[in-house]
Amino acid sequence: MLLSVINSVLEMQSLTRKADTILGFVPTMGYLHKGHLSLVEMAKKQCDIVIVSIFVNPTQFAPNEDLDNYPRDFDGDLKLLTELGVDYVFFPKTTEMYPAGYSTWVNVEGVSEVLCGKSRPAHFKGVSTIVCKLVNIVNPNYMYMGEKDFQQIAVLKRMLLDLNLETVIVPCPIIREADGLAMSSRNKFLDTQQRQDALCLYNSIQHTRTRYQQGCRTIGELIPEIEQIITKNNGKIDYIEFRTADDLKPIDQLDKNTRLFLAVYIGNTRLIDNAPLLSQ
Amino acid sequence: MLLSVINSVLEMQSLTRKADTILGFVPTMGYLHKGHLSLVEMAKKQCDIVIVSIFVNPTQFAPNEDLDNYPRDFDGDLKLLTELGVDYVFFPKTTEMYPAGYSTWVNVEGVSEVLCGKSRPAHFKGVSTIVCKLVNIVNPNYMYMGEKDFQQIAVLKRMLLDLNLETVIVPCPIIREADGLAMSSRNKFLDTQQRQDALCLYNSIQHTRTRYQQGCRTIGELIPEIEQIITKNNGKIDYIEFRTADDLKPIDQLDKNTRLFLAVYIGNTRLIDNAPLLSQ
Repeated sequence: MLLSVINSVLEMQSLTRKADTILGFVPTMGYLHKGHLSLVEMAKKQCDIVIVSIFVNPTQFAPNEDLDNYPRDFDGDLKLLTELGVDYVFFPKTTEMYPAGYSTWVNVEGVSEVLCGKSRPAHFKGVSTIVCKLVNIVNPNYMYMGEKDFQQIAVLKRMLLDLNLETVIVPCPIIREADGLAMSSRNKFLDTQQRQDALCLYNSIQHTRTRYQQGCRTIGELIPEIEQIITKNNGKIDYIEFRTADDLKPIDQLDKNTRLFLAVYIGNTRLIDNAPLLSQ
Repeated sequence: MLLSVINSVLEMQSLTRKADTILGFVPTMGYLHKGHLSLVEMAKKQCDIVIVSIFVNPTQFAPNEDLDNYPRDFDGDLKLLTELGVDYVFFPKTTEMYPAGYSTWVNVEGVSEVLCGKSRPAHFKGVSTIVCKLVNIVNPNYMYMGEKDFQQIAVLKRMLLDLNLETVIVPCPIIREADGLAMSSRNKFLDTQQRQDALCLYNSIQHTRTRYQQGCRTIGELIPEIEQIITKNNGKIDYIEFRTADDLKPIDQLDKNTRLFLAVYIGNTRLIDNAPLLSQ
């Protein structure tokens, strides 16, 4: 079957509600890179039908953020998804997703208020709302999401559980460039020097892992060392935090369930990364 | 088929998701009166399978409100629903609907912030959240709700539309006692004198209709007249408002699309009522 592009919510619903098959869904904002494609490949392996949505969701961007500037390449995306054998691309208009008078917001308290939720206070409300809508429209069995947005997965798992939605999130590992930089649509904003500087995130992770294996368990020791790696490479720190992997709770001491979370500005581009302390 | 009582979310979901039939749903907080039963009867007429939920939802009560005191009579309810030929009663535990760590809230802005939303600021957030959960669990084609809670219907219609839920609300007319008092589980709190006083709500509606038919279009004239009817009968006014029936917008002048909304304390019991200006 050839890939079909669907623009209308009703058409998407009528297609998916009928299916008596395992349905895999990959929600994206487009400008696809190998990270997204790894999600699609996983979905293709596990499901009968694979649907990818491409929607740059305005409600998860604050007015001062990069919505207008967010990279787009629909034709390029379509080519990549066709090659991977995706069945449907859901590509709705903003005016259909948020029509005049739109008033409803899904908010996950707690887990959405730390890390990126602190730096971007309305971000996760926008994410939870659009994903709730997309899940209701597509009604997938499985939803594939990358661990680069680790907190997003935690927020959405909580939302699906709390709202009694039966879709199951399949978290997929971060895909990195050869030198370790986590793939991101925003990497395209980096110039040559910044691309080099951006390695400070992955280098911080590697440094932390080495120190952990050497026996370091003290957060107060590690944070200044990571700060140094980042600032030496012209990065501006948004946050460096160690938290539990399952519910993102703050911790006193490092252990095997700890995850390191980083958000760093390289120039005007905000990059995030995260990793467990033991390399996978 | 005999009525089945279902306590578990998973069991309810497995039953309803399989059905290839028209499914009608009546969400209630129990202590059923003829108003509720009229919803069930309508559902029985229009649907193949009828599910009634009985759940006193704690999140729609403020700490100072009457949650602990809210009347309950599960055995009596079950008897009434059996007589009407209901197929399933969904009767979940609070700890299953709101387990430890519960964090997700569905909020409808605008239409939920006026009238009862002003007097009871967190009320509709609780209502939207529980109905979103119930709709996800029961997955009904039609949901039957009484126009006594007219604003609730407006809020939930907005929520269903915004979140792309396909359940359709069927609004049903207010059922009244022979003397005009709108049926409500809270009427049981009224003593003999208060039961008499409570007629001030319906009398205000009747007075307004008469004055409208006489040609009165001026809100500023009518409000003091209604105030007088209510206070003469020992009622304490929460609000008297005229708004558009479709989106509850405030208006300057009465017309055929206007609806009168009342909330009045009779003793400690808060009663609400509403009506279009032309009797139906």
